[in-house]
Amino acid sequence: MAISDVARSETNSCISAGKVNGTNVYGVNGDKIGHVEDVMLNKRTGNVAYAIMAFGGFLGIGERYHPLPWSVLKYDPDMGGYVVPLDRARLENAPSYSEQELGPDDRRWREPVSTYWNVPPYWM
Amino acid sequence: MAISDVARSETNSCISAGKVNGTNVYGVNGDKIGHVEDVMLNKRTGNVAYAIMAFGGFLGIGERYHPLPWSVLKYDPDMGGYVVPLDRARLENAPSYSEQELGPDDRRWREPVSTYWNVPPYWM
Repeated sequence: MAISDVARSETNSCISAGKVNGTNVYGVNGDKIGHVEDVMLNKRTGNVAYAIMAFGGFLGIGERYHPLPWSVLKYDPDMGGYVVPLDRARLENAPSYSEQELGPDDRRWREPVSTYWNVPPYWM
Repeated sequence: MAISDVARSETNSCISAGKVNGTNVYGVNGDKIGHVEDVMLNKRTGNVAYAIMAFGGFLGIGERYHPLPWSVLKYDPDMGGYVVPLDRARLENAPSYSEQELGPDDRRWREPVSTYWNVPPYWM
């Protein structure tokens, strides 16, 4: 087996970040909306703060990014991807940012995300 | 900016899994011990259950893997990597597994890991 077999693996209770990254994200009606670009970890607590879903654009140009709380991503084995409990239109209205906007200072965007998804702030 | 700039990014409170993966791990005396191969997430809670540190081997052959609790990995900006509060010899005595042993059934190895590092079980 190659290293990547461990890297892209799954156990009974866990999944590797390497396997989550790149996985497709679908709306409730089965429309493909985007894919998980990466998973952001709270450095202090080791919780997943949010996943970054990428959608739109071409070769990274014009792409937009949604910070999504982990709790809204439900894995659907039949779809082979994550399903978010919103239709495409409502998900597209969720807070999204360009790469420049989604910069290292998350204080500029984290509150709208937390409010939209009705989840506790990950930064406290 | 390319997509990878988002993927390998960091905010004031968070770090992306893509940036953690591949980061070197050092012992307290500065010896390089290995690197983070991947980060395993608890599917239900979204907590980091453990990081998989790879060490030894060549092109993946003979490589061994340590499941390390997130809480023992302290990032050291001067080293540009994670420092584990053990010297190399003691870290090498921590539970480690071949790729075959570190399979999808984590019940075969998770208890020794939890006991060695004195951390609560991640699977409860």
